[in-house]
Amino acid sequence: MGVFCVLLDVLNDEYYMSLALDMAAKAAGQTGINPVVGCVIVKEGRIVGIGTHLKRGEGHAEVHALRMAGAEAEGATAYVTLEPCSHHGKTPPCCERLIDAKVARVVVAATDPNPVVSGRGLARLRDNGIEVREGLLADRSHAMNEKFNKYITTGMPFVTLKTASTLDGKIATVDNHSRWVTGAVAREQTHTLRHQHNAIMVGIGTLTADDPMLTTRAEVPALHPARVIVDSKLRIPLDARVVTDKTAPTIVLTTDGADAGKRQALEAAGVAVVAAGDGPAVDLTAALKELGRREIGSVLLEGGGKLNGAMLEAGLIDKMVLYYAPKLIGGDLAPSNFSFEGRKLMSEAIMLDRVQVEMAGEDICVIGYPRNRSGHGEAKGE
Amino acid sequence: MGVFCVLLDVLNDEYYMSLALDMAAKAAGQTGINPVVGCVIVKEGRIVGIGTHLKRGEGHAEVHALRMAGAEAEGATAYVTLEPCSHHGKTPPCCERLIDAKVARVVVAATDPNPVVSGRGLARLRDNGIEVREGLLADRSHAMNEKFNKYITTGMPFVTLKTASTLDGKIATVDNHSRWVTGAVAREQTHTLRHQHNAIMVGIGTLTADDPMLTTRAEVPALHPARVIVDSKLRIPLDARVVTDKTAPTIVLTTDGADAGKRQALEAAGVAVVAAGDGPAVDLTAALKELGRREIGSVLLEGGGKLNGAMLEAGLIDKMVLYYAPKLIGGDLAPSNFSFEGRKLMSEAIMLDRVQVEMAGEDICVIGYPRNRSGHGEAKGE
Repeated sequence: MGVFCVLLDVLNDEYYMSLALDMAAKAAGQTGINPVVGCVIVKEGRIVGIGTHLKRGEGHAEVHALRMAGAEAEGATAYVTLEPCSHHGKTPPCCERLIDAKVARVVVAATDPNPVVSGRGLARLRDNGIEVREGLLADRSHAMNEKFNKYITTGMPFVTLKTASTLDGKIATVDNHSRWVTGAVAREQTHTLRHQHNAIMVGIGTLTADDPMLTTRAEVPALHPARVIVDSKLRIPLDARVVTDKTAPTIVLTTDGADAGKRQALEAAGVAVVAAGDGPAVDLTAALKELGRREIGSVLLEGGGKLNGAMLEAGLIDKMVLYYAPKLIGGDLAPSNFSFEGRKLMSEAIMLDRVQVEMAGEDICVIGYPRNRSGHGEAKGE
Repeated sequence: MGVFCVLLDVLNDEYYMSLALDMAAKAAGQTGINPVVGCVIVKEGRIVGIGTHLKRGEGHAEVHALRMAGAEAEGATAYVTLEPCSHHGKTPPCCERLIDAKVARVVVAATDPNPVVSGRGLARLRDNGIEVREGLLADRSHAMNEKFNKYITTGMPFVTLKTASTLDGKIATVDNHSRWVTGAVAREQTHTLRHQHNAIMVGIGTLTADDPMLTTRAEVPALHPARVIVDSKLRIPLDARVVTDKTAPTIVLTTDGADAGKRQALEAAGVAVVAAGDGPAVDLTAALKELGRREIGSVLLEGGGKLNGAMLEAGLIDKMVLYYAPKLIGGDLAPSNFSFEGRKLMSEAIMLDRVQVEMAGEDICVIGYPRNRSGHGEAKGE
C-alpha cells in the first residue's frame, strides 16, 4: 500500500506554466531587485517561444519569448509567471508587446505584488480582447519572488538568516573553534543562497575571527553579492580581505560616533561606510532602510549569534535557514546560533511559521518564517 | 514526473512477514525485557494462525499461532520475526513446537542477537527436515528489537534520550519556565515512548522543579514504566509525587555517602534506593548495570540538560529523540538540552549516526544514534 503517484504528464495550462516557473526559478539572484519571471508561448500544440527575465534593465521574459515566437505569436497563448507590466519603466510595457503581437490568450500565475498597480496589466489585456486566466500556480510564483515582494512593497530588503549549529545550538566550541560545523552539502547550499541574494551580512565579531572573503564559491561561476559588515565602532582592519579584495562591493554599517579618520581610510580603500544611529550600536532598522535605498533588495544574514539575536529582536528577519549538524559539542558558554536577552515565559518565544525540514547531506535543514511582523511572506498579490 | 509507487500488493513471503512484523511492533513495551515477536502460519493460500508474544513468561508468538492453526499447521509455512528459541526457558522451546506440529517451512526475519545461541534454532529445524528461509525483512525486526538486542548481549539497559527544546537549544527560559516547549503531537509521542520503555529516568533538578508524576497518559490505557530518579544527595522530598503515588515503582539512584536516615525513610515509603559510587555524583555506568540486574532492559531518559550531558559524556545513550519547537527563546544562560564541559575542537563533537528527521505536528523531530560505543544498534545477529 502506498501513495499513488504518476510518471505521466497531463497536457494543460499547468503543463506549460510549470516550465515558465522552472525557467524563472533558475534565474534567482541574477535580476538584482527585479523579480524572476518566465514566459512560454504556445500555439496549436507547439511551444513557439520561451523567455526569462535575465538581468535588470534588459528584456522582460515576454520580450524574449515574443522575439523567439515571431509571427507565430499571433493567436497563441502566452504563459507568464507574473502579471505583465503596464507601465513604462526601464523597458516598454509588456502588455503592449503582447497586444501588438496579437496573442489570443494570456495565462498568469501571480498578479503584481504592489496593490496600487496589481491587476492593471491584466485589465489592459482584457480591454484589448485578450482572454486572461490568472492565479494558476500563483503560490510557486509568490514563493520564488518573496524577496522582490517585500522590497517592492516596503523598500526594505528581505532578510534570510542562515546558521549552522550543532544539535545543542552551538555555532562554535568553547574555544571558538568552528571548522566545520556542517558538511559539504550544507556549505554548497549556502554558497547558492549567497548567489541568490543581493548582499551578505555579518557582524564584526565574525569578520575579525575568520577574516572571511564572503564571496560565492560553487562548482560553476557564481554571482558575488555585496558584503555588508555591521561594525558600530569601525574595528574592521584595513587589511581585512573584504577590504582588500575587490570581487564584490563592501559596505560597512556603523554609528554616527565612529572614528572619522578610520571612516576616511576605509572610503579611500573603496569601502562604502554607512552611519546609522547615534547610539553605541548600529540602528539596524535604519541601516537596512539605507541598504534598500541603495537597491539592495535582499540580504543573506550569516551571523554570529549576537547579530542574529539583535536582528531577530528588531523584527528584521523574514526567513530562516537553520542547519543542524548531527552532533553535540557542549560547553554552556560556547557561542549559540542566537544570543539575545531571553524571554521570561516560553509563551513569549518568537515563533516560526510555515516550517519545513529536510536533510542536507548528513545535516538537518529547518526552514521557517519568524512571526515578527505583518506577514510579508503572506502577501497574496504580486 | 514522480516516483512510481503502487497501491497493489504482491503475494509472496514478504506479504506475510510484514503482517508478523506489524503485529510484533504494536506489542512494544508490553514484553518487559523480552523481544517483540510475531508469527503468521499460512497453508494453501490461507492464513490459518497468527500470534504475538504478549507478555514475558507467557506464550511465545509461535505457540499462540500454532494453537490457532491446530491440525492445519501440518504442511504449513510459519513466518516468524525472530529465530524460534531452542532452549528451555520460561516456556518450552518453540522449535520443538514447530517440529511437533509438522510445519513444512519456516521463514525467519532475524536470527538470535546472542552470537552464542544464534542459528541453533534454525539448525534444529533443518535437522528435522523443515525448509528454512532466513533474513527476510531482518532490518525491521532488528530495529524493533534494538532495546532487547542491547540488553541480551550486554546486560545494560538500552537508553533512549528524549528532549524538547527551542531552535536555539533551550529547554526552558532564563526564568526556568518551560510549559510548554513543544506541542500536543510531540507530547503524545513522548507518552508513547514511555509506554515502550521499562523505565523513565530524570534528574533531581527536574524532579524538584516540576514534581512530575512520570506516568504515561494516552488516549487509551497505557503501561507505566518504573520511575528512576538520579539524586546523588537524596534531596528528593518524601512528599514528591513519585514517592507518594504508587502507579509505578520508583527507584532512586544515589551515592554511598547519601544520608542513611533519608534512605530508610524512602525505603519505608516503598521507594527502592540504589547506591552507585562513593564519589560526589552517581556512578551512572554502575547504576545502569544495577538497573539491568533488576531486569530493566530499556530506559527513557527525560532530562534536564545536566543529566543528559553526564549520560552523553559517559557514553551511555544509545538513541536520541530530539524535538525542536519552531521558536527561539534566547537567554545565554537559559538551560540547554545538553549541558556538559564542551569539546575544544568541532571535530571532537559527539556525532549522531543514522539520523532521521520528520515533523511531529508543528514541531521537528530528529532521531539519531550517538557514535559513542561499539555499535549496539548495528548488531546484525538477533
